[in-house]
Amino acid sequence: MTTVDTPFAVLDTDRLDRNAARLRDHLAALGVPLRLHVKTSKSVEVAQRVHAGGPITVSTLAEAEHFADAGYRDVLYAVGIAPHKLPRVAELLRRGVRLTVLLDSLAQAEAVTSFARKENLRVPALVEIDCDGHRGGVAATDPALPEIGRALGDHLAGVLTHAGESYFAYTPEALHQAAQNERDTAVTAAEVLRATGLPCEIVSVGSTPTAHAAKDLTGVTEVRAGNYVFFDLVMAGIGVCTTDDLALTVAVTVIGHQRDRNWVITDGGWMATSRDRGTQAQAVDQGYGLVADAGGTLIPGLVMTGASQEHGVLSTRDGAPVPDLPIGTRLRILPNHACATAAQHDRYHLVGGEVWSRHRGW
Amino acid sequence: MTTVDTPFAVLDTDRLDRNAARLRDHLAALGVPLRLHVKTSKSVEVAQRVHAGGPITVSTLAEAEHFADAGYRDVLYAVGIAPHKLPRVAELLRRGVRLTVLLDSLAQAEAVTSFARKENLRVPALVEIDCDGHRGGVAATDPALPEIGRALGDHLAGVLTHAGESYFAYTPEALHQAAQNERDTAVTAAEVLRATGLPCEIVSVGSTPTAHAAKDLTGVTEVRAGNYVFFDLVMAGIGVCTTDDLALTVAVTVIGHQRDRNWVITDGGWMATSRDRGTQAQAVDQGYGLVADAGGTLIPGLVMTGASQEHGVLSTRDGAPVPDLPIGTRLRILPNHACATAAQHDRYHLVGGEVWSRHRGW
Repeated sequence: MTTVDTPFAVLDTDRLDRNAARLRDHLAALGVPLRLHVKTSKSVEVAQRVHAGGPITVSTLAEAEHFADAGYRDVLYAVGIAPHKLPRVAELLRRGVRLTVLLDSLAQAEAVTSFARKENLRVPALVEIDCDGHRGGVAATDPALPEIGRALGDHLAGVLTHAGESYFAYTPEALHQAAQNERDTAVTAAEVLRATGLPCEIVSVGSTPTAHAAKDLTGVTEVRAGNYVFFDLVMAGIGVCTTDDLALTVAVTVIGHQRDRNWVITDGGWMATSRDRGTQAQAVDQGYGLVADAGGTLIPGLVMTGASQEHGVLSTRDGAPVPDLPIGTRLRILPNHACATAAQHDRYHLVGGEVWSRHRGW
Repeated sequence: MTTVDTPFAVLDTDRLDRNAARLRDHLAALGVPLRLHVKTSKSVEVAQRVHAGGPITVSTLAEAEHFADAGYRDVLYAVGIAPHKLPRVAELLRRGVRLTVLLDSLAQAEAVTSFARKENLRVPALVEIDCDGHRGGVAATDPALPEIGRALGDHLAGVLTHAGESYFAYTPEALHQAAQNERDTAVTAAEVLRATGLPCEIVSVGSTPTAHAAKDLTGVTEVRAGNYVFFDLVMAGIGVCTTDDLALTVAVTVIGHQRDRNWVITDGGWMATSRDRGTQAQAVDQGYGLVADAGGTLIPGLVMTGASQEHGVLSTRDGAPVPDLPIGTRLRILPNHACATAAQHDRYHLVGGEVWSRHRGW
């Protein structure tokens, strides 16, 4: 790893294993299986390590196809289906992948059923339920839910919700409430469907914060989480992990100094870290990330405060002089948002030297 | 193009050609050649179209190698050199590429000369000059400048400066002053070197705003600009272009609605647009971008106000009801920052149907 040209993504598999074990043990205690979201790592090697061959969630059909090629056979595409993407769904189903799609409107349900009829296929579909006003989905009590369920007919496979607002829950109490609400909303939606005589085999919930904060998942059939394998400063900021848990960092090299501005300049700009400023609205704004030495030990007070395309600016939070970091010094940046930072890279360099792949595109 | 699955990057070559001609004509009138910065497009096809075979600027050695493979022989690597990257520089020089490096410290100058001596090579180097406190470089009047120049000996090729702060110049007057200051600082630095008996063949300036705003470039030997081929909302916000000039957009599809929140949801999230919020500090915050129909005509008042990884949220600036955009409708997002948005994609889909490549990595 020390001979690779910076910037590059570093993956600490000890931390990866510890993060994976933590959620695995927690969900085992709650008696609910995990459906790993691979959108964070987009890496077959990571999935094999933490969840070999298990059910997965994907954010793109490109991920579905890539993981299908690697042998994954139970795949949930958790972004509302656009009708023109159904031919690729059909192709995966015909390859023997149980690919489940997501939707929240009658228009999509009709597109799915009419396509499925024409192709003589069953296209398992979940109805997206809105539990916190974060993004898509119908309310559990919206009359549209049973209407969509009926329109889906045999294609109806269940319900799904995602507590996206839990990323803004800043206390253990708020996190627990978000988890409780996510579970309650999904179970209510399932009951609404069943009360009208419709089946609801799958009751899917999840986000990294709520997966960890949940204390009771009665009625839930699977939990989705993805970020937890790497964690990041946003997750540390809401207390789901500590900075010691971050498995993904970006290796950079010092290329300059502006001593009168108290800056250290590196060759890792936003192209390497992403433009994600997810901690901007948190109690502690971590800039573009915290800074560790080449071995991964945090350098107290040093923050990546600026980013051009291929330049990072490091300075101190309190204005104290920056430490002596001569030109050529290797450092590591702890990212705000692992999903966005990983997306800037085509591979992961393991601390031990091995290289793991990463997929991209749509 | 209409059969490609969204999201994808759309390139309008009519606008590209118009943007290229505009800067070409302007610099021709000023009598200074362009050194195209390829960091925005990272596309050999784009470079061929606007600047076939001409001198280029790169932001990574991966770009240098990629464009060298395509026949480009005059390449400036405009990020301060990290000593461990010199072997790749040597490899390019041995291939017959005139690769020029950049530095702003004695430590780098000594690393370059000692490496060059060992390898028996001339490594042309520019000294980076700081003209506006934006990033790296020494002041034109800093005694360190001739010291670095002397340390470089035969490797000294000239000086370079970049008016990075011009991205925050909001009036024609401020833009012109930034251009004037960039030119004056570079020429002063060249005079300082020459006054001490050192050569200064190259006097390199540039940024997209200052390249357009410059009225007199006496003493300058080349102008660097990259963003101008695509332009973006940040550039429109400072008045360097209008939204009609944006050559790069992102095609997305409507996948849902939240009618009580007045939202349209698309399949283009930050993975497709980037997390860049470059207009956040401008007079008009454009969210994650403006919205056009499939043909590229702006939909007045509609803004991409939210982004998850694979979801975009569109809403109106003034709270007026969103237009009727049924599921399956294709739209195009005009990005804040073309460099960052293009970086999320592996290829460009031309309006006419052709596909152009894009390189990435380091």
